[in-house]
Amino acid sequence: MREPIDFYFDFISPYAYIASTQIEAVAARHGRSVTFRPVLLGITVMKVMGLKPLMETPLKSDYLRHDGPRMAKVYGVPFRYHGLKGINSLAACRAFLWIGRTDAALAVRFAHAVFRALWVDGRDITPADTVAEIAGALGVDAAELRAGIASEPGKLALNAAVEAAIGRGVFGVPYVIADGEPLWGADRLWMLDHWLGHHAWDGAGLAALAAGR
Amino acid sequence: MREPIDFYFDFISPYAYIASTQIEAVAARHGRSVTFRPVLLGITVMKVMGLKPLMETPLKSDYLRHDGPRMAKVYGVPFRYHGLKGINSLAACRAFLWIGRTDAALAVRFAHAVFRALWVDGRDITPADTVAEIAGALGVDAAELRAGIASEPGKLALNAAVEAAIGRGVFGVPYVIADGEPLWGADRLWMLDHWLGHHAWDGAGLAALAAGR
Repeated sequence: MREPIDFYFDFISPYAYIASTQIEAVAARHGRSVTFRPVLLGITVMKVMGLKPLMETPLKSDYLRHDGPRMAKVYGVPFRYHGLKGINSLAACRAFLWIGRTDAALAVRFAHAVFRALWVDGRDITPADTVAEIAGALGVDAAELRAGIASEPGKLALNAAVEAAIGRGVFGVPYVIADGEPLWGADRLWMLDHWLGHHAWDGAGLAALAAGR
Repeated sequence: MREPIDFYFDFISPYAYIASTQIEAVAARHGRSVTFRPVLLGITVMKVMGLKPLMETPLKSDYLRHDGPRMAKVYGVPFRYHGLKGINSLAACRAFLWIGRTDAALAVRFAHAVFRALWVDGRDITPADTVAEIAGALGVDAAELRAGIASEPGKLALNAAVEAAIGRGVFGVPYVIADGEPLWGADRLWMLDHWLGHHAWDGAGLAALAAGR
């Protein structure tokens, strides 16, 4: 049996949200499972690559504000741009890993709930209180979670996850690594689907698919 | 009749090369024509957005070195990474506009020839001599072209083209504007095809297309 597909995400990315709504279905069509892996764009984009945040980049930010809702529409998923500033996913990412220590499936449900809170309901997912409340609604003990993500092991787990992701070349999200092949972006799920089915970059009408025919 | 589709390119981009091999066919399927419009990434990426060149960006450059040949394979077009450093498309972009002043179709043939010279034959397209030679092989008077691109009008035409592109929000290449809709990237031709056919971002199996089904 093949390894699960690695799906790297940060809650603050609208494209990671959009891909998160699709990735398990794409994998399932090929009898594959998905491992959700949080990273922090603040570290990969800003510290490692030395770039500024996308939404502070002239011209590109205008395009992205148009493109996020458009891509959500393409996939038929709910989406709205919140007007929130300075969202930080540190607590939510730590919570994901903390929950996943004992229940990986519950952690994935939690990830979907956090994505929805931010990108559908427009809720600021920065405060640990909000993160604990979202988890609590899924049956997680909120007080235990609060203590867990404030603990050294809770912090170190995320640091290690981000370091490991960087070690594998992850620089943005969504970023998928499937059977050794890296794919960046919510607009490349058609390539992932082809790769999982063929493990080659040609044949089977791929060029036609790429050009929409 | 609708306006032609605007296709923004810079010869130094492998993705612009790949898209340049497809864009006219996608447009033709919808009875549309294409206007090729050169821009200079050195100005849009570096000066306006304040970013460094992609290939000097840690992590991302490794991904792009893998992804360029992969995307060429997806579309079934010849491609090889040249080992050339510091390629400058200034002379080639000026020449494109200079040729296009009197013969737009010839300018497009010249653009394809320059793309092939760089991304298939691995030729440095920086020197005006090389640019003039490529144009000469297509029947352009090389001496006249050399004089044209060294003249003030020859320089100003490209400056104006780049300014106009920035004014329309173009920040990278390939960048397409079709019936008011902007699309960035060689991996989004399936979206362009859909847009040209439907002028909407849903319906007609688009979500399935996006996910490769």
